[in-house]
Amino acid sequence: MGFENIVACKPVGSGEGVFEAVNPSTGEKIPGQFQIADSALIDSALKAAKEACQLLKNIGGANKAEFLRAVADEIAAQTSNLVEIAMAESGLPQARLQGEVNRTTGQLRMFADLVAEGSWVNAVIDTAQPDRVPLPKPDIRKLLMPLGPVVVFGASNFPLAFSVAGGDTASAFAAGCPVIVKVHPAHPGTSALVGEAICKAALSTGMPQGIFSMLYDAGYTIGEQLVKHPETKAVAFTGSYNGGMALIKLAQQRHDLIPVFTEMGSINPVVFLPEALKSRPQELANKYAGSIALGAGQFCTNPGLMLAVQSPGLDQFVDTISEAVKATPSATMLTGGIWQNFQKLSEASIAEEAVSVIAQSTNINQNNINQAASVVLKVSGKDFLNNPKLQQEVFGPLSILVVAENAEQLEKIVETLHGQLTVTVMAEKAELSAYRSLLDKLNNIAGRLILNGVPTGVEVCAAMQHGGPFPATSDSRYTSVGTSAIYRFARPVAWQDWEDSLLPKELQDANPLNIWRLVNNQWTK
Amino acid sequence: MGFENIVACKPVGSGEGVFEAVNPSTGEKIPGQFQIADSALIDSALKAAKEACQLLKNIGGANKAEFLRAVADEIAAQTSNLVEIAMAESGLPQARLQGEVNRTTGQLRMFADLVAEGSWVNAVIDTAQPDRVPLPKPDIRKLLMPLGPVVVFGASNFPLAFSVAGGDTASAFAAGCPVIVKVHPAHPGTSALVGEAICKAALSTGMPQGIFSMLYDAGYTIGEQLVKHPETKAVAFTGSYNGGMALIKLAQQRHDLIPVFTEMGSINPVVFLPEALKSRPQELANKYAGSIALGAGQFCTNPGLMLAVQSPGLDQFVDTISEAVKATPSATMLTGGIWQNFQKLSEASIAEEAVSVIAQSTNINQNNINQAASVVLKVSGKDFLNNPKLQQEVFGPLSILVVAENAEQLEKIVETLHGQLTVTVMAEKAELSAYRSLLDKLNNIAGRLILNGVPTGVEVCAAMQHGGPFPATSDSRYTSVGTSAIYRFARPVAWQDWEDSLLPKELQDANPLNIWRLVNNQWTK
Repeated sequence: MGFENIVACKPVGSGEGVFEAVNPSTGEKIPGQFQIADSALIDSALKAAKEACQLLKNIGGANKAEFLRAVADEIAAQTSNLVEIAMAESGLPQARLQGEVNRTTGQLRMFADLVAEGSWVNAVIDTAQPDRVPLPKPDIRKLLMPLGPVVVFGASNFPLAFSVAGGDTASAFAAGCPVIVKVHPAHPGTSALVGEAICKAALSTGMPQGIFSMLYDAGYTIGEQLVKHPETKAVAFTGSYNGGMALIKLAQQRHDLIPVFTEMGSINPVVFLPEALKSRPQELANKYAGSIALGAGQFCTNPGLMLAVQSPGLDQFVDTISEAVKATPSATMLTGGIWQNFQKLSEASIAEEAVSVIAQSTNINQNNINQAASVVLKVSGKDFLNNPKLQQEVFGPLSILVVAENAEQLEKIVETLHGQLTVTVMAEKAELSAYRSLLDKLNNIAGRLILNGVPTGVEVCAAMQHGGPFPATSDSRYTSVGTSAIYRFARPVAWQDWEDSLLPKELQDANPLNIWRLVNNQWTK
Repeated sequence: MGFENIVACKPVGSGEGVFEAVNPSTGEKIPGQFQIADSALIDSALKAAKEACQLLKNIGGANKAEFLRAVADEIAAQTSNLVEIAMAESGLPQARLQGEVNRTTGQLRMFADLVAEGSWVNAVIDTAQPDRVPLPKPDIRKLLMPLGPVVVFGASNFPLAFSVAGGDTASAFAAGCPVIVKVHPAHPGTSALVGEAICKAALSTGMPQGIFSMLYDAGYTIGEQLVKHPETKAVAFTGSYNGGMALIKLAQQRHDLIPVFTEMGSINPVVFLPEALKSRPQELANKYAGSIALGAGQFCTNPGLMLAVQSPGLDQFVDTISEAVKATPSATMLTGGIWQNFQKLSEASIAEEAVSVIAQSTNINQNNINQAASVVLKVSGKDFLNNPKLQQEVFGPLSILVVAENAEQLEKIVETLHGQLTVTVMAEKAELSAYRSLLDKLNNIAGRLILNGVPTGVEVCAAMQHGGPFPATSDSRYTSVGTSAIYRFARPVAWQDWEDSLLPKELQDANPLNIWRLVNNQWTK
């Protein structure tokens, strides 16, 4: 079985060779050959995308919503096939992938609702004041327009929800941008099915064909060329710090400047306050043993750092999490490379001076390869402060418990942390007021603050902020999850003294789309 | 008379030497010596700014508004002194500078109103659904928080409205960010007076002193160090393409990524449609002769390119603009360097193959130096398409008329244009519908589209978009004029399952500030 690249919603052959997917649980190749793309396909994809822009920017929200819902429907219709292929390609369990299909279709439908309603364009109208002195005031109206062709990199750890039709693609489509996906080579078969679903939906809802292309590569060449292509107007990426920064550096070689949103993960510190540790040490320990191991630790919001002050409650917490971690079953990591990297980095962390192992899973699946064993390490607050290497993300089920001498040291540690996607506080309500100074510093370093929960599990909704100060993302002003993700791909355009009938409907006097607008500084509908 | 740098609202001496302002009309030095800053002052300014952040982020909108209004009041109280000094330093006329004081105080008061009202923080609330299956939905709430210390570069061409307390500073203060201004060396005395006004206002309204610093330099060293300083969290700049790109490249050398918003000007094409040229050639010609010469052509939105199809109306337009340009009085440019650059670039444009001079001002003020003479050039559409150099901005009163063979060539020219701040269309209403295809392409290249007006004169209001695709700005998703300029300096932070009493007031259940919020996808107040 051979798979061609998709250019402007059509399969196109290339002669650059092929690659195959690998089952990470067995190391065996999965039947099916994927053609590696080439420069000519990139040019064709971007040329078609540019042409599609001219049509797409004038397609109404209702039509865009119809397309997004059709993509969701086409994907939903393939659920069992998708789950089967994705299980083989990713080593992730069935229930997780079933949930991910639902999240993927849910995201598409959420963006469909957003653009069907229409107020997301942030329409602002200031009407004319011809009699104003010393100068008359013109009529000015603005709204958001699509940026242009967006290159999306499929993420390894969400073969559906952050891959071909994932959050980046859905938000770019919703903004009215064509998308060129660089397929993640770890799940090309899953990608092929999803790509086909998008093409079907584009055809059935009358979208311009240039709205979607999807290119395969076993290495980095195609991605590099896509980021540097003159017609690329934005890039979206979820992955490692090294991968994200490589794309940023490539984009810096362009003649122009384009937004490159890279979500590069973080260590998601969790602060355990003493009363919580005293009153429910076992509960917290079991909850966190589970969060650390979830998805083999392969989440951007995996809790890689736990912070607490020495106390008897902490000792009980350590005892329980130690037992829980030892018993946690190993899990297949997404690829052999990710597993090797986890092994290397976790061994390096263990070898760091003054770091000790609290527990490591002994419940290893011997039938499969690339098995990640949960591990929890310990270091003193002082030693943590002296060793910046311990802030490095280890992608996988590893967490470091930092035991501070006292509350002051705990606060000092928080001050030294790099930018994070999340910070979590586990606390009793009554003790929170004693930590106001500490709590007030948490929002300096993170995009999302969680109380008495776990950072894993990112709700997809309007209020979600999945982003954070560098190095968590390349631009803390944006999110890659939730409806606000659309704002990465749109820019304001203002019309001054324009003819009403020639304005976008969103800005016409009669407000024919009945959207919320800021008119002369008042929100009205 | 000596002027020290201002660090954390206090004058501080340095030993790096001094410079003096120059009157560009005479070339004479203006009495007063300005101390050049040094690295130690930069460190002190950023350290104080960082400390101020922790306080500023929790200061309510009412207090920020009080501060912004106090700055406006202090500046207004200095109006006559400011106008006098700015006239000597900039060569700009009294009425213009009087207007610029009003614009500056108006901007500050506009941002005061914005933050006093409070809805700008984009508060979004999704309430919990504990019974949702398969997983409960947490309560998530987000709003915008300040980015941190912002470095603002004073712009040469707006010694007040885009300098020490100009639009960049006002919007950064409004967002809750401390500001470190790099003074433009062309108007240090004006800057000193405005800096003093800010310090007084900060003191009288109880702001943390680190909210404001202001550093002098005759060269580039201080600006470079400010952009590269680890505590700088954003940069705002208005100026030339070369200057803006130099700052971008400096920021690319940082360890982290920070937003650098550079507004780098453009040539602001004006499309003259044939019926308009036929019915009112003299009116259009006189209007544009004025717009080209306004402020000695030293505006980001100066109309440097005029596009039209050959017609008898165009001939009449050319005759009239030729007469008008010849009679336009010369004007003093902002600095000797800017004048030399204008001379060099305008001579180079004239020397380009196939370019002819329609008219050049002969009304030159012989009593003053650095006199810019208005000039209008002409080139055929074909020759324009073949010569990308003609798209280069010439900062000053120069405009090139491109005479296209026909409407198709006109549209082709529009397609080849770089990103612009503005595009203007001069048309009769009845002919617009015949140009739908052309009109539909204009929003691809510009941030603001104007009908039957001039691009010079940028209204300061909520609907304004003063930005545009590269190279007009570094990021087309933002504006530097109008209330939306605040969004360059803020990032969302979300709180999940947080205690109501510990949330920012904007997110508390009771909505104590009575702001607009998106609650469960509905706008409410």
